[in-house]
Amino acid sequence: MQITQLDLSDDIIDLGVGQPDPSLLPLAVLRQAATHRLTQPDASLLQYGMEQGNEYFRLSLAQFISDGYGMPVDPDRLFITAGATSGLDLVCARFTSPGDTVFVEEPTYFLALRLFADRGLNVVGLPTDENGLVVETLEEKLAEIRPAFFYTVPTFHNPSGVTLTASRREHLVRLSEQHGFYIVADEVYHLLAYTTEPPPPMVSYDTSGMVISLGSFSKILAPGLRLGWIQAAPDPIRRMTRSGLLLSGGGMNPFTSAIVQSAVELGLQRKHLNRLIGIYRQRASDLEAALNETLSASTTFIPPGGGFFYWLRLPQDLDTAALRDTAKRNGVNFQPGLNFSAGGELHNFMRLCFVYYDSDRLREGVRRLAAVIP
Amino acid sequence: MQITQLDLSDDIIDLGVGQPDPSLLPLAVLRQAATHRLTQPDASLLQYGMEQGNEYFRLSLAQFISDGYGMPVDPDRLFITAGATSGLDLVCARFTSPGDTVFVEEPTYFLALRLFADRGLNVVGLPTDENGLVVETLEEKLAEIRPAFFYTVPTFHNPSGVTLTASRREHLVRLSEQHGFYIVADEVYHLLAYTTEPPPPMVSYDTSGMVISLGSFSKILAPGLRLGWIQAAPDPIRRMTRSGLLLSGGGMNPFTSAIVQSAVELGLQRKHLNRLIGIYRQRASDLEAALNETLSASTTFIPPGGGFFYWLRLPQDLDTAALRDTAKRNGVNFQPGLNFSAGGELHNFMRLCFVYYDSDRLREGVRRLAAVIP
Repeated sequence: MQITQLDLSDDIIDLGVGQPDPSLLPLAVLRQAATHRLTQPDASLLQYGMEQGNEYFRLSLAQFISDGYGMPVDPDRLFITAGATSGLDLVCARFTSPGDTVFVEEPTYFLALRLFADRGLNVVGLPTDENGLVVETLEEKLAEIRPAFFYTVPTFHNPSGVTLTASRREHLVRLSEQHGFYIVADEVYHLLAYTTEPPPPMVSYDTSGMVISLGSFSKILAPGLRLGWIQAAPDPIRRMTRSGLLLSGGGMNPFTSAIVQSAVELGLQRKHLNRLIGIYRQRASDLEAALNETLSASTTFIPPGGGFFYWLRLPQDLDTAALRDTAKRNGVNFQPGLNFSAGGELHNFMRLCFVYYDSDRLREGVRRLAAVIP
Repeated sequence: MQITQLDLSDDIIDLGVGQPDPSLLPLAVLRQAATHRLTQPDASLLQYGMEQGNEYFRLSLAQFISDGYGMPVDPDRLFITAGATSGLDLVCARFTSPGDTVFVEEPTYFLALRLFADRGLNVVGLPTDENGLVVETLEEKLAEIRPAFFYTVPTFHNPSGVTLTASRREHLVRLSEQHGFYIVADEVYHLLAYTTEPPPPMVSYDTSGMVISLGSFSKILAPGLRLGWIQAAPDPIRRMTRSGLLLSGGGMNPFTSAIVQSAVELGLQRKHLNRLIGIYRQRASDLEAALNETLSASTTFIPPGGGFFYWLRLPQDLDTAALRDTAKRNGVNFQPGLNFSAGGELHNFMRLCFVYYDSDRLREGVRRLAAVIP
């Protein structure tokens, strides 16, 4: 019986999977946090919650994010979501209409493309380089059309691993102010820095309320919780809380919020995150060594410095989607670049994830992969 | 600091509130269930879950619903949601486009109207009587326009308390088959029967996959869990699981699902529901007695037999929305009928809820109300 989203065969090392290692899921943390919270004589976590999310939880969360981001975070600018995806869907609901245009990076997070398609949005991909979005091309595009928002993964990008530089962040936010479009910054990897300290998150550059930042407990605690947050200015927060969805259902996940609040306040979240960073740093380093040792020089990548992914560029004439069947027959899998393209390009790229498997499996995966890359 | 969706003053008895009594929220049940689940050496509840919802949970849930509904329930026809509202929003996302028409009952659940407005849907209200929807008027309306779906609360209606008869259910489902529109049945009150056994739920009349039934743990366990289900045929279920929202986020609430699964399997859910039924039955009876004793004969109602609400009809020349300020000054509040109307009507109705307060407060509320109804 299949009990999680993916049902992986033991025969295949699927480096395409962008999920946490099941053996690192913090069951003991949640047990301790749940016991702590549910033995308090306060049943309010079982009632319809405030649309914006419980204020005590937002206070603890603000403190936690503030420590991680190295900047003050105002709890009134936090809005609790059922994960970054639910946050992005709510942003689409409240800030777009079908037929609107949104800008994304090329490459971009492939399932965000699915979400935008479901909302009837036109998606325009903008080129990126080793420093993230090439902001000048955005400026040119803005002369033609103003998007409802620009969706970006500014730090440790999914899939490319690159991080938008501080000066480009500055430039991007100024453009959003001048042209009146929101920046929807998917910052779920920001706290997962291994070898590179990223610039401050996008919200820290925001002086006029144009940045809507998505955060999540999926990457730092557990995806099954369906818990995340949006950080934004009062006006966009208000617009989100006034949706029929929230007025009817109340806050998005009060029960889980309260348990995770205990995990944060007991220091368990911080401790778990530190543990993940140590393990993921080692895995990234081991995968990178294996790639360097095993693959030919015609396959290149930019070391990511944090996050979940390596993004391999293969020779221009290779089609990674077509390579997949051979790879699977050889016991390895990956995400082909095409999936991450708004314009049907990137056929010679592939995404590898280093958090699902341990170093031995990663090395074995790269060995199998090398055997099928011509 | 406000910690739940509503921050009620002690001075006002707000009979408009459609939420469970805070003193009846089952903290001990959730504590026991969480301990049971989180001490098992299985962390799968923390991983991205299956889009349709965990299969073990769906098995337990199917058994539980089956007992309550008195009909077999196929776990493959269940889809786990983050509450009935999230289910309804997902149905709108997958089965409507902005500009589409949906039919509702007049009166209807007021926050569903908000949700439909957010989705850009045109809403047409259809008349009801003491037996629910007047199906003939639906038939006439269908000659003009085919809706994307008909949204109905067939059992212990919110706000009117009425229950659609078996023969009308039959008729309604046949019409949906002939004309090709879905019936979205909000059946969240079905298991809360006090004095009347309702006909089988709408799904039991469905032979061609046109009924999408919304269920929820909000009314039978706790709203803060954000957990519910959809019961439908394989085709609509498939359509829902293939949304970008679910592909990206995985199943809707795996962590809470697993804990509630323990509550169901340990018999705690059944026991809590039985307790609620006993208490709510008494409160309904006490409210009804107070209404009969205190209000003039010009105010009438149909005893609901289950659910949460009494729906009062006042003399035609009264406007309950206008009456509200006076009522509040006299320490009582209610939901004016206008809120439940798709067509801006029902000004001489009001909704009273009997589950939030105990019998003493309900009687005092009615006393205060009587003093302000001319």
